[in-house]
Amino acid sequence: MPTWEVRDPADPRLAPFAALTRSGPRDTVVVEGEIAVERALASSHLVTAVLLTAAHRQRLDALLDPAIPVFVATAAMVREVVGFDFHRGCLAVMPRPVASWTDAVRDHDGLRRVLVAEGLADPANLGAVIRNARALGVDMVLHGRGADPWSRRAIRAAMGLGFSMPVIRCDDLAQAVQGVRARMGEAARVLAAVVQPGAVTLTHYQPPARAIVLVGNEGAGLSEALRAQADDAVTIPLADGVDSLNVAAATAVVLYALAAADGDGGRRSEPRSASGAVK
Amino acid sequence: MPTWEVRDPADPRLAPFAALTRSGPRDTVVVEGEIAVERALASSHLVTAVLLTAAHRQRLDALLDPAIPVFVATAAMVREVVGFDFHRGCLAVMPRPVASWTDAVRDHDGLRRVLVAEGLADPANLGAVIRNARALGVDMVLHGRGADPWSRRAIRAAMGLGFSMPVIRCDDLAQAVQGVRARMGEAARVLAAVVQPGAVTLTHYQPPARAIVLVGNEGAGLSEALRAQADDAVTIPLADGVDSLNVAAATAVVLYALAAADGDGGRRSEPRSASGAVK
Repeated sequence: MPTWEVRDPADPRLAPFAALTRSGPRDTVVVEGEIAVERALASSHLVTAVLLTAAHRQRLDALLDPAIPVFVATAAMVREVVGFDFHRGCLAVMPRPVASWTDAVRDHDGLRRVLVAEGLADPANLGAVIRNARALGVDMVLHGRGADPWSRRAIRAAMGLGFSMPVIRCDDLAQAVQGVRARMGEAARVLAAVVQPGAVTLTHYQPPARAIVLVGNEGAGLSEALRAQADDAVTIPLADGVDSLNVAAATAVVLYALAAADGDGGRRSEPRSASGAVK
Repeated sequence: MPTWEVRDPADPRLAPFAALTRSGPRDTVVVEGEIAVERALASSHLVTAVLLTAAHRQRLDALLDPAIPVFVATAAMVREVVGFDFHRGCLAVMPRPVASWTDAVRDHDGLRRVLVAEGLADPANLGAVIRNARALGVDMVLHGRGADPWSRRAIRAAMGLGFSMPVIRCDDLAQAVQGVRARMGEAARVLAAVVQPGAVTLTHYQPPARAIVLVGNEGAGLSEALRAQADDAVTIPLADGVDSLNVAAATAVVLYALAAADGDGGRRSEPRSASGAVK
């Protein structure tokens, strides 16, 4: 395994690690902190280099493929390389994950839950949505416009959980929903999480065995184009005087309600009639 | 109503509004943004002054008690007063809310849900927990040590929803839980949200009609002293490879599960036997 002890923070091979606070989309993604780096290393994504202290290197040893360049440095030297007061002592760089929903659907047997996050403005919200999706049984996240899931704040909020599930940008989310739905089969329903009156209360909704869940922008909600793809609109009952939940909290509640209907991790296999899914 | 047009950003009466970025606990709380200011004005808390643009003043007019000094300024002047590039054009100042759980319990008939947040480190998490609690039917939040619920980030994450429910700091949370529980009656159960194996899976838990829900620090979880107060430990079923949810997401899921058991906002009144609450 190529391992170098870092002696010069200006070593040009370390340049990707110094881009951490540069804003805007980048071709190279920088992953911070041992948990997220561990998840990146354990994923199918290609990690191109890691920079870490000896302690972190020891803990991650089993995951460090011999082909990955490893730069070991003191905590102070790590701070010098990244150029600010960075305390986490562990970073990885990787090419920006790129995937198409058509490939992902083809490679994924038996999709049961897909989450579509449309135009979230806040990368921390998008990251938190990704974390909740991965934790609560979603197989794939689609997003379009809005925040970058591979930005610093999004990866941190997701705890690196976006590396172990397809997270796919779609230029046309409505078209992607149609295509994914077609691959999921007759039992699949598209479920819009909304705050409008007239929607079905989540507690009264009979969750379908296979679902595509749509969540929208923090202020504007879902676009008309995406709303038009939904079979059902559901809303979480809220206390008087409260207009909405945060989008990540709402996502967690809806996904939990879907998973809870499966019982103890059991999987439903019988298709349901489309008209019978809402009672 | 005492209204002044602001012409001098150094006007000493505006000093409280300039403290926004000062860190550390303060006696005066600064509330930012129209939604949070609206909630502060509509609450039982005493707002001591507002600083806003003419547009915000018009929208909040009905809530501006004649006794509250109102400072109207251009957006540019508001930025000059607060001393950084502040875009929200609307602030309020108020004394730090101070309350005791003994008073709150005495003043509150029929407490059904109490949330206890122990030692959260991140004010954004505590704020999000407060928002979720208020949205999902909690009557009162107790907290101890950890982040300040009246800090800038916490109020923003809570969207000001902490003003319309008691949010009470307790030096001894375990003692407060005992006291509140005694006032809630026999039907009340104390519910620890944990990630440990051996806990009851939330989907299999029969929610009690009255509950005190305990959530702990982002890393360390609940203290032994508080854990010892719990009747039940519940855990949210998570996908393989995921160790935990964010504390605010977990809070939302647990509170939703409790509220969902009530059905369509209906209230259970019959007490349940303590031993029968977990099936």
